[in-house]
Amino acid sequence: MSIHQPAITLLISCPDRPGIVASVSQFIFEHGGNILESDQHSTNQEECRFFMRISFAEEGFRLAPGELVAGFQPIAEHFQMSWSVSYSRRRKRAGILVSKLDHCLTDLLWRWKSGELAMDLAFVLSNHPDLEPLAQMYGVPYHHLPVRKEQRQEDQRRMLDLIGGASVDFLILARYMQILEPFVVQSYPQRIINIHHSFLPAFVGANPYQRAFQRGVKLIGATAHYVTESLDEGPIIAQDVIHCNHRDTVEDLVRKGRDVERRVLAEAVRLHTEDRVLVYENKTIVF
Amino acid sequence: MSIHQPAITLLISCPDRPGIVASVSQFIFEHGGNILESDQHSTNQEECRFFMRISFAEEGFRLAPGELVAGFQPIAEHFQMSWSVSYSRRRKRAGILVSKLDHCLTDLLWRWKSGELAMDLAFVLSNHPDLEPLAQMYGVPYHHLPVRKEQRQEDQRRMLDLIGGASVDFLILARYMQILEPFVVQSYPQRIINIHHSFLPAFVGANPYQRAFQRGVKLIGATAHYVTESLDEGPIIAQDVIHCNHRDTVEDLVRKGRDVERRVLAEAVRLHTEDRVLVYENKTIVF
Amino acid sequence: MSIHQPAITLLISCPDRPGIVASVSQFIFEHGGNILESDQHSTNQEECRFFMRISFAEEGFRLAPGELVAGFQPIAEHFQMSWSVSYSRRRKRAGILVSKLDHCLTDLLWRWKSGELAMDLAFVLSNHPDLEPLAQMYGVPYHHLPVRKEQRQEDQRRMLDLIGGASVDFLILARYMQILEPFVVQSYPQRIINIHHSFLPAFVGANPYQRAFQRGVKLIGATAHYVTESLDEGPIIAQDVIHCNHRDTVEDLVRKGRDVERRVLAEAVRLHTEDRVLVYENKTIVF
Amino acid sequence: MSIHQPAITLLISCPDRPGIVASVSQFIFEHGGNILESDQHSTNQEECRFFMRISFAEEGFRLAPGELVAGFQPIAEHFQMSWSVSYSRRRKRAGILVSKLDHCLTDLLWRWKSGELAMDLAFVLSNHPDLEPLAQMYGVPYHHLPVRKEQRQEDQRRMLDLIGGASVDFLILARYMQILEPFVVQSYPQRIINIHHSFLPAFVGANPYQRAFQRGVKLIGATAHYVTESLDEGPIIAQDVIHCNHRDTVEDLVRKGRDVERRVLAEAVRLHTEDRVLVYENKTIVF
Repeated sequence: MSIHQPAITLLISCPDRPGIVASVSQFIFEHGGNILESDQHSTNQEECRFFMRISFAEEGFRLAPGELVAGFQPIAEHFQMSWSVSYSRRRKRAGILVSKLDHCLTDLLWRWKSGELAMDLAFVLSNHPDLEPLAQMYGVPYHHLPVRKEQRQEDQRRMLDLIGGASVDFLILARYMQILEPFVVQSYPQRIINIHHSFLPAFVGANPYQRAFQRGVKLIGATAHYVTESLDEGPIIAQDVIHCNHRDTVEDLVRKGRDVERRVLAEAVRLHTEDRVLVYENKTIVF
Repeated sequence: MSIHQPAITLLISCPDRPGIVASVSQFIFEHGGNILESDQHSTNQEECRFFMRISFAEEGFRLAPGELVAGFQPIAEHFQMSWSVSYSRRRKRAGILVSKLDHCLTDLLWRWKSGELAMDLAFVLSNHPDLEPLAQMYGVPYHHLPVRKEQRQEDQRRMLDLIGGASVDFLILARYMQILEPFVVQSYPQRIINIHHSFLPAFVGANPYQRAFQRGVKLIGATAHYVTESLDEGPIIAQDVIHCNHRDTVEDLVRKGRDVERRVLAEAVRLHTEDRVLVYENKTIVF
Repeated sequence: MSIHQPAITLLISCPDRPGIVASVSQFIFEHGGNILESDQHSTNQEECRFFMRISFAEEGFRLAPGELVAGFQPIAEHFQMSWSVSYSRRRKRAGILVSKLDHCLTDLLWRWKSGELAMDLAFVLSNHPDLEPLAQMYGVPYHHLPVRKEQRQEDQRRMLDLIGGASVDFLILARYMQILEPFVVQSYPQRIINIHHSFLPAFVGANPYQRAFQRGVKLIGATAHYVTESLDEGPIIAQDVIHCNHRDTVEDLVRKGRDVERRVLAEAVRLHTEDRVLVYENKTIVF
Repeated sequence: MSIHQPAITLLISCPDRPGIVASVSQFIFEHGGNILESDQHSTNQEECRFFMRISFAEEGFRLAPGELVAGFQPIAEHFQMSWSVSYSRRRKRAGILVSKLDHCLTDLLWRWKSGELAMDLAFVLSNHPDLEPLAQMYGVPYHHLPVRKEQRQEDQRRMLDLIGGASVDFLILARYMQILEPFVVQSYPQRIINIHHSFLPAFVGANPYQRAFQRGVKLIGATAHYVTESLDEGPIIAQDVIHCNHRDTVEDLVRKGRDVERRVLAEAVRLHTEDRVLVYENKTIVF
């Protein structure tokens, strides 16, 4: 759902116990906030955990950002909350990392320009020069930053400097074919979104499309997830599949894979920019 | 989501204004209720309308049913709410109406017996005798009640008496091929669920499968909705489609139609039994 | 399936009777053709009709194009065939008509450039100037050709001249918001592909998204079809849907509609360029 | 596609070279056969392999079964074909193996009785007594045959005797929770169909639903395949998925898994009974 009036969104995660919703909604109400959306989820597992996303109109709300934080702090402490607040008027700022494949980048740029993705775009960064014209057409700065095997650490450190200088809130790996060094991943915890192909059954390792073809799979899929230090094992944000059959060549599988990859990545980015994703342990709650 | 501990669920619809969530959640909290699920929705249309579904644990909640109603009444009046309360321990009681086609009935009976549908089943009623053995296998009373053209009104009045005698909460038309008289529909407002085929484009009138075949459609679908006096025009609860192609004969379309019909009807029944559907004007909010 | 070696494809439609496959495949074999793909379909309706698509390698086939036509003619006459032949090395030449909305155009251009669509692109033509930069980025000529209400006939005649001058094989209406005059449609029979939204149930007329929203549909879809003189009623090539719910605003429905529209249109174009679509009466056979 | 007139179907696999289709279709034609359906597929891989399924009307075809085999043999030898012939009037005879879970069995029995699956049903065999009433309602013999850990070999040998005595053509494992001994698998090569859950990513080993839940997957799927001696690694016949989210408990995942399992298994059985599946190496071609 797009909320078109300026909104303030709280994301909350805490141990489950009675009174949380009452306290949070009372706090919003008594300061003049009108709730626009509210979602919550409780795990009924051994350990009960409570998750909440609540959005309210900025108009009419009487606390300035600093006052909101100060005012909410006692509630947060009382319930031992991990929490964050965001203002829809302050759009998230993204950087896109890409290599040579352009399907995800093309899709993201178009959706961004058409207003589907409520984010600002700081740059496109690539270890190859190929996609500069595409970025240029959309007026987005393009940085060509090769990563050399023998000096990957230094190159990624330079990259991290560049990213840091652009003050981005999160990074999108739009088919960026380099493994990020741990110090990069640690700099943007739960704020780097990656896309990769997924098969049933899984084909871990090299040439997955070739092997999926040889196995005659009837589905190929894509998974968008937050990057953690365990490669491709981070919390899943979105997934989808597409049907295929014996007529599909390896190239057809790759083509269909592109379609599902770009769709799933765009969906994950949209959910992230709208503060709809909470991570707990290695799992997401997507409101 | 299945909630496995006994729960109390409030369904609320009212004009939107600040303070509703705070008031409702405060009420639940102060009487010892622990919220299990909460969903809300506001229409941002000309007329702002607020919808809410909130479930809390029965265990620990200190008000008896009568006390809950009395205690909540002032809040409901203050916000001009339409509202209802249900207890998961008091399962809804359903009656199924069917003619000769058994695909929806088979599916519902199996899902009901396997525990997927949290309802009690009062009877299967049909204008034909054919499906009695099926109902018997699942131990459900079967009523054969023919509807004769020349005395449809009387026959349906007899049917309504029978249904009334069984104290059902809602009715499921599992491919019941008779048009219900207005007095039947009015007796169970927003409590009769029907399933019918749907095509893109629509083929209104007789022989829809034959005409969809002639038009070479690539999709066939099904729509489950609440019955209103406007035939097949009531609020939509669930919809889905299935792909088809030129190889599908009319019979194949009918076969595929059965698959999607039974799946969509079962989904609508599940949503209804779990109090997940709110109706406003001719539209549903499905939480 | 992509066939990567140069191939010759026959599309055949004729009354069904024994011996067709034998005759066609014998003809190909005796002139050195190796069959790559073969599909056939017979309608088992009142009138039995036979449809066939057969592709064979150009390499090794000993007949020149003119000889093929002359040599096949007796078989075609014997079986009263409607038939056509195409060479994959001679890619189809397309023209795209568009108005202001860019989602389908962006998608088609990207797929075309990435090699997914085996066609040449002669031009993008629009009644608005807005999308020229997009066409330019892909190096495709852009013609701005306004259509004025009071002189629609003349304007479309000028448009037809321009199209004719570009020697295109088929036209793609990528959200072209003008109704084509009958003389335009008649100039490219079964060679103009259009995309439009589709709903369950159908909302014919103005503001379909607004009305679908008011009705609370749970699905929105898109249909790609050949243009005939009956508006939006031509043979369906491809269809798909996307799920939606009460949280989707009218704008969300439009956004989701864009996603499904561009996917379905691209699929229809791909099928057409690969000679996979046969039309009979108002229906397609898609091999 | 359902062919409603009695048909003869040839399944052919051989090295690819020119003239195969011509020879086969000429053979059918000269003996009076009218082709109803024909599909072929060539692998364009290192090793070119040709696959074909061709159905023709039994009415008018002048060769008796023995004559067909004798007459076709020279063609088969010339092209080094693996081939088989089947008559639609001689329906395949199936045996179903099941344990305690009834969702797949319920679905198969209903589809079988409703005429969707063109097979005869010899028996339902289970290592538990629980599902006997279900089989009885459909008039299918039920054999209770426990498999004891300490004498699995003997028990499965008894089972194989029983199956052999029933002269079945193929076996359906409708959630049969015992690993088949190699001698059982070898007795029905490419004629035992199994269904199992599938996840993205894969969760091999125990408690897959629990682990998929902990990982927060957004999809769960099912794969139907032929049983080989490599557990769950045989050629895939059909696959599908269903979406899920953080609200789904482990029990919800199991429920959704049941839905997709029974749908995918039924599809695989339908394809097998209609002779639509060819196996080559560890892959299927599904016509």
